[in-house]
Amino acid sequence: MTSTSDTTILIFGASGDLTSRKLIPALFRLSQQQYLSPRCPVVGVARRPKSHDEFRTEMRDKVKARLGNDQFDAAAWDIFAKQLFYQQLDITNAEEYATLKESVQTLETQVGAGSDSARIVYLATTPDLIASAVEGLHASQMIPPRELESQLRVVVEKPFGRDLKSAQELTVVLSRHLQESQIYRIDHYLGKETVQNILLFRFGNAIFEPLLNRNHIDHIQITVAEALGMEGSRGGYYDTSGAMRDVLQNHVLQLLCLIAMDPPSLFQAREIRDEKMKVLQALRPGVSGPVGNWAIRGQYTAGLVDRQPALAYREEDRVNPNSNRETFVAMRVALDNWRWAGVPFFLRTGKRLPKQMTEIAIQFKNPPLNLFSTVECDGDLCDLVETRPNQLILRIQPQEAISLRFSTKRPGMNYQVQPVSMDFEYGDHFTTQLPEAYERLLLDVMRGDSTLFTRSDELEAAWRFVTPVLDAWESSSSSPDLYPAGTWGPSSADRLISETKAIWRAPR
Amino acid sequence: MTSTSDTTILIFGASGDLTSRKLIPALFRLSQQQYLSPRCPVVGVARRPKSHDEFRTEMRDKVKARLGNDQFDAAAWDIFAKQLFYQQLDITNAEEYATLKESVQTLETQVGAGSDSARIVYLATTPDLIASAVEGLHASQMIPPRELESQLRVVVEKPFGRDLKSAQELTVVLSRHLQESQIYRIDHYLGKETVQNILLFRFGNAIFEPLLNRNHIDHIQITVAEALGMEGSRGGYYDTSGAMRDVLQNHVLQLLCLIAMDPPSLFQAREIRDEKMKVLQALRPGVSGPVGNWAIRGQYTAGLVDRQPALAYREEDRVNPNSNRETFVAMRVALDNWRWAGVPFFLRTGKRLPKQMTEIAIQFKNPPLNLFSTVECDGDLCDLVETRPNQLILRIQPQEAISLRFSTKRPGMNYQVQPVSMDFEYGDHFTTQLPEAYERLLLDVMRGDSTLFTRSDELEAAWRFVTPVLDAWESSSSSPDLYPAGTWGPSSADRLISETKAIWRAPR
Repeated sequence: MTSTSDTTILIFGASGDLTSRKLIPALFRLSQQQYLSPRCPVVGVARRPKSHDEFRTEMRDKVKARLGNDQFDAAAWDIFAKQLFYQQLDITNAEEYATLKESVQTLETQVGAGSDSARIVYLATTPDLIASAVEGLHASQMIPPRELESQLRVVVEKPFGRDLKSAQELTVVLSRHLQESQIYRIDHYLGKETVQNILLFRFGNAIFEPLLNRNHIDHIQITVAEALGMEGSRGGYYDTSGAMRDVLQNHVLQLLCLIAMDPPSLFQAREIRDEKMKVLQALRPGVSGPVGNWAIRGQYTAGLVDRQPALAYREEDRVNPNSNRETFVAMRVALDNWRWAGVPFFLRTGKRLPKQMTEIAIQFKNPPLNLFSTVECDGDLCDLVETRPNQLILRIQPQEAISLRFSTKRPGMNYQVQPVSMDFEYGDHFTTQLPEAYERLLLDVMRGDSTLFTRSDELEAAWRFVTPVLDAWESSSSSPDLYPAGTWGPSSADRLISETKAIWRAPR
Repeated sequence: MTSTSDTTILIFGASGDLTSRKLIPALFRLSQQQYLSPRCPVVGVARRPKSHDEFRTEMRDKVKARLGNDQFDAAAWDIFAKQLFYQQLDITNAEEYATLKESVQTLETQVGAGSDSARIVYLATTPDLIASAVEGLHASQMIPPRELESQLRVVVEKPFGRDLKSAQELTVVLSRHLQESQIYRIDHYLGKETVQNILLFRFGNAIFEPLLNRNHIDHIQITVAEALGMEGSRGGYYDTSGAMRDVLQNHVLQLLCLIAMDPPSLFQAREIRDEKMKVLQALRPGVSGPVGNWAIRGQYTAGLVDRQPALAYREEDRVNPNSNRETFVAMRVALDNWRWAGVPFFLRTGKRLPKQMTEIAIQFKNPPLNLFSTVECDGDLCDLVETRPNQLILRIQPQEAISLRFSTKRPGMNYQVQPVSMDFEYGDHFTTQLPEAYERLLLDVMRGDSTLFTRSDELEAAWRFVTPVLDAWESSSSSPDLYPAGTWGPSSADRLISETKAIWRAPR
């Protein structure tokens, strides 16, 4: 457990929800675990004037409320609070950055940070402020010269554009004054333990990798299901975004990259991201013809989720009552490369599905010879019982787990096949609490490790794939296919997969 | 649940321990489960005169004592007892077989058995009576003509000889009047659920078979460990037999065949036994040079087993105090075929080991690239932590289970490897009691299914492999390597395996 070298963390947008809900709790936990040296000042930056102590009290109250009295360690907070500061700044006013720079230098001296101390600027702001922030940092010469580039790292939050063009524009804005290696595009999904475990599971074991290719795999399903709808004021943002931009373009395609990529030659950011990039370059529609042949969109109507009545999407707060925004996407895609040619990948995400669940389900081909088929009768009802294909499930949430379905012999006088599961649940084996995604990711930025962050070429490749689908939907006169809240999406999604004789997994 | 067609079961040696301990309980259970039709008479045959009712009472008392009052179903027994009979016979007196034949015909008529009813003669006798029994059956024309050969099946119990020559002699005796297809050599090991499951596990799943070969496997260990010593009067027999004849030549080599064989083209007796035979034909010493290079023998000295003091083998009842009989064998063998060339197989069996345990442990090679090695320190003690090879364990007893060891990510801020296990325990998934090996095997004889019985060519091939080792030990002036009771065998066994950098599994 070594702490990183001295780093100053500036959080732009310190009054926002993300700061009090995720960033400060994560930094507090890192401080408690001695990952964050007391010589690393954490500076909240926002427009309103506020004293250091006001900011500390405000954060303390929010973190305490979040953790509850029992979990909140007041003594640890007092230690952490000593390195917590506030600085007023109008992000859009380039002239104020000189003051910011001066204050930060003072704080760094005050906590005893080394002269080679690095700075992290976390842009927890709306996307429209990113350009101003980068210009302000440039104007105040807070961006170090090229040979010292690692001394400034800028963290950017989603969304990274809303289509290929806007994503490219964002890259232009960022790279006007920053090097690619200084930009950390954060996707909190990649900070989750089980997402990271995909790589160790694949490349730290000798038994799975030989099977993960077109010779042995029938198809792969990736599901990111949410039970929630438009709680709070979420409808306003969501109705301009939708399931494709909000989840599929980033989370789902990242999971696809991790499960489909070739082994990297080194376990380092560049090599891993190069391999992910190769997957995105090989990404193709799963069948030819118009978009509707391989990508469908859905929107939920009223229904029951977890036995509670749920509104239709169009009735939700801040949603246009005539909205054609998709709350569900299902796609059949293919990877046009040596390893995966001919293997269908089915991707699916949606709101108001029966349960929250993220998983990758790998379905193997049937054994080449069906040696064990038997006819079993229950009274007059007879059934042909055969081996069922093996499945390997990587469950990312809830309850991180790995599960292998295989066939065994049913005890008794015949060779009767019985499908069973071997399960490995994280929670059963590790008593330590899994770290929050933001803890890991913030620590990685401090360590200068960009493995779990999205590179601009990855981002662009992902947008290049989904933008034509978004355009087709935008220009179409038809509406999304409807599905009642609390079901696994519209029937068109079932048709999409049933062409290959597969079915969507629908765990209870 | 269909019962087999009418079959008469004659048990030669009905006064013996095996009859009351295994055969009658198994037949009773089959009757309870409607696998044994009431038209199938079960006839105990032995030298002493006894009435049907005397025999029934005797069996009832013994079965009841075995099962306990709670488990014994008196009503079911009364049904079963109706088809249970006794016939006096001196096996060595060929003239008495005419009477036997007559009585059996009468009983068959009495229970209403069909005219095409088959007969099973179960030779639960000492091996020296086998020749007389076959001659007697022949003399009384109880052996049907060739075209009706399946109407007589003869079950033979271990031992099948004590070396290649005696096994061949036994085959000559049996085949003088019987066809190979009429001979059922019973090895109760093959009747165990988990042993049978090896085949379904391998060939009913698509994910294991592609890995079970020289490309992916580092080595395989097969262990049949017993904690028992020479309880009761066992020493007398054992001191003429030993670990090689008693367990390795049959049970261990059968397990080797099942885990190493190629997939059969049909799941039928002939095809499966052909594939097992191919394994035995490919069996070779694991290293060149004298026997001692690849096969070691041990004998236990006094020690502690399960915290109880245990005698040395030479101090056991009915054991020669200067005996050089082996109570432990370890071997390194190889299979000289396309699939397994270069993969060491380590075989091991012994008495007075720390626990009763039968398992096949398949150790995979390490991943080709060690992407995840980290240095971990606990104070001043630092260790290089790397992925450990995957292991697939098929545990046959106690508690039948399948277990897969793999590497996962230890939750936390680094890519630290943590070996974990996924387990499938039979007992957790199947509430039905596993059938006793003898139930399954007797039913198979009634069905005429010889899949789980040893064919004469298999038997001969197994003896051909072990006989030179027995001869070498016999003619050697040295003694077995000693090991204290309650340990995993002599240190020479460790040397045998450590040449390949492997170690014996020693589960607690």
